Amino acid sequence: MGIAEAAPPPEEYPPIVKGASLLIAYQLKNRRVLLIGGGVVASGRLFFLLESGAHVTIVAPSPLEPSIAHRLTTNADDITWHDRDYTGRSDPIIVDDFVMVLTAIDNNPLSREVCYMAREKHIPVNVADVPPECDFYFGAQLRRGPLQVMVSTQGQGPKIGAMVRDRVIAALPENVEEAIAGVGELRGELRKRAPGVGGELGQQRMAWMIGMCDSWSLDLMGDFRSEALRNRVLEEGWEKGKKVVGPNDVGQCPSLWAERVIGEYCSRLGGWATVCGFLGGITVGYS
Amino acid sequence: MGIAEAAPPPEEYPPIVKGASLLIAYQLKNRRVLLIGGGVVASGRLFFLLESGAHVTIVAPSPLEPSIAHRLTTNADDITWHDRDYTGRSDPIIVDDFVMVLTAIDNNPLSREVCYMAREKHIPVNVADVPPECDFYFGAQLRRGPLQVMVSTQGQGPKIGAMVRDRVIAALPENVEEAIAGVGELRGELRKRAPGVGGELGQQRMAWMIGMCDSWSLDLMGDFRSEALRNRVLEEGWEKGKKVVGPNDVGQCPSLWAERVIGEYCSRLGGWATVCGFLGGITVGYS
Repeated sequence: MGIAEAAPPPEEYPPIVKGASLLIAYQLKNRRVLLIGGGVVASGRLFFLLESGAHVTIVAPSPLEPSIAHRLTTNADDITWHDRDYTGRSDPIIVDDFVMVLTAIDNNPLSREVCYMAREKHIPVNVADVPPECDFYFGAQLRRGPLQVMVSTQGQGPKIGAMVRDRVIAALPENVEEAIAGVGELRGELRKRAPGVGGELGQQRMAWMIGMCDSWSLDLMGDFRSEALRNRVLEEGWEKGKKVVGPNDVGQCPSLWAERVIGEYCSRLGGWATVCGFLGGITVGYS
Repeated sequence: MGIAEAAPPPEEYPPIVKGASLLIAYQLKNRRVLLIGGGVVASGRLFFLLESGAHVTIVAPSPLEPSIAHRLTTNADDITWHDRDYTGRSDPIIVDDFVMVLTAIDNNPLSREVCYMAREKHIPVNVADVPPECDFYFGAQLRRGPLQVMVSTQGQGPKIGAMVRDRVIAALPENVEEAIAGVGELRGELRKRAPGVGGELGQQRMAWMIGMCDSWSLDLMGDFRSEALRNRVLEEGWEKGKKVVGPNDVGQCPSLWAERVIGEYCSRLGGWATVCGFLGGITVGYS
């Protein structure tokens, strides 16, 4: 038996390191969630539930934390409030009617009872501040339109999670929302020109879009919101042998880029008005 | 009625902007997950499920994607494999036995059936590539020990999600794992000195830890892995009126910091050996 045969197969795959969470983006649009509690922690939960489009049933006695009271007026259709304590298994509101259950109350035995009730029915449950009774945790997060980022430290350092989140914010291109919107519009236009689901054409579309994203970078992709530019890259790129065209291939881009950079610089300084006033002031000073 | 009374209350709270996902970190340690499918997409799912400590039941006929076959040997205790197609409602493997169900197969009617089966039982389900049949999506992600980050674009630009993820990686301090470990050890030591759950002392501990994190920054917190430094900040800070002490307050830190920066620089160059060899070469060259 030769050396080649005796040698173990190369380890092509990264080893499994346990101890992680499964990070997922839960879809709650028009789905019912039960939130037990009306304090500060509950108000944070409510914010994220409403942003995800859930209908939230709150069971908590008055007085509610002020932001929850505020949401009851601004988002009346999205919230049902029961002004009383939840009573566990004897309560007429049963967990089966919800796709997710959260408690944020100081009553540990009641929280535990709710946790058991939910788990018996396979319904995902989160009990604030009691990790063993949580099917899922929350993390530090940020949102910019369709972009969402969550940072989790497996409960080992929530403050560090928030610090990492702040680094992420600082590292994001100013116009990342525009980039996502621009790429979405370019893809939409491409689908109109080359319609159909799956198959070879679908793969060509995907390959071209990936190539375009690689060539344009996050900072520039917002430029695809311009219809003229979309038509140009589709005409000069996709239509001519599905060629990927970069910013340097289309003459229009340097000006778009300059416009964006100058505009961004100005918005950081407080907008054009400030800059113009400032420049005006300089001019006056030297006149 | 005066102007003050007539004016609407100030909008203190950010308005709700719907369309988000609820980003959560699901806990699957020692919990059972059903994975239907044995191809490339299933292999990605399997990796993240195993890292989160789940026991995964795979139902998929041979041949399995090579990395799945590999995991069957390296993680035999964590996987049960049924070498056959799943048959839906008639299958002896029922969804009730699992806390999560995922399918990654080309059979759309079967996927839909599995989705309905899971939803009837409130079990979170993901059907690859069919958003309406998903209770949750996955996103671009990264892991550094206890730190995990997920980037979601609400399905509008998976490539952009991956690009943002790469920016996050570039923005992270090299030693972010060390920072989390260091802060964890400091907190552990603090709890030994000032034990007890909740109450005023708990709040003082939390306030001191947050102050320490703010003073030390992500780049330096890995230094808390040094027992000498931990004792020093606890003695000179916590024990003396719960004072927050920064890197400049403890003489030891500049050297620790220099050691870290030099070490990091060297590891980027390929370790001390390279540097020493390089410096040695220069010395020889000039001797």
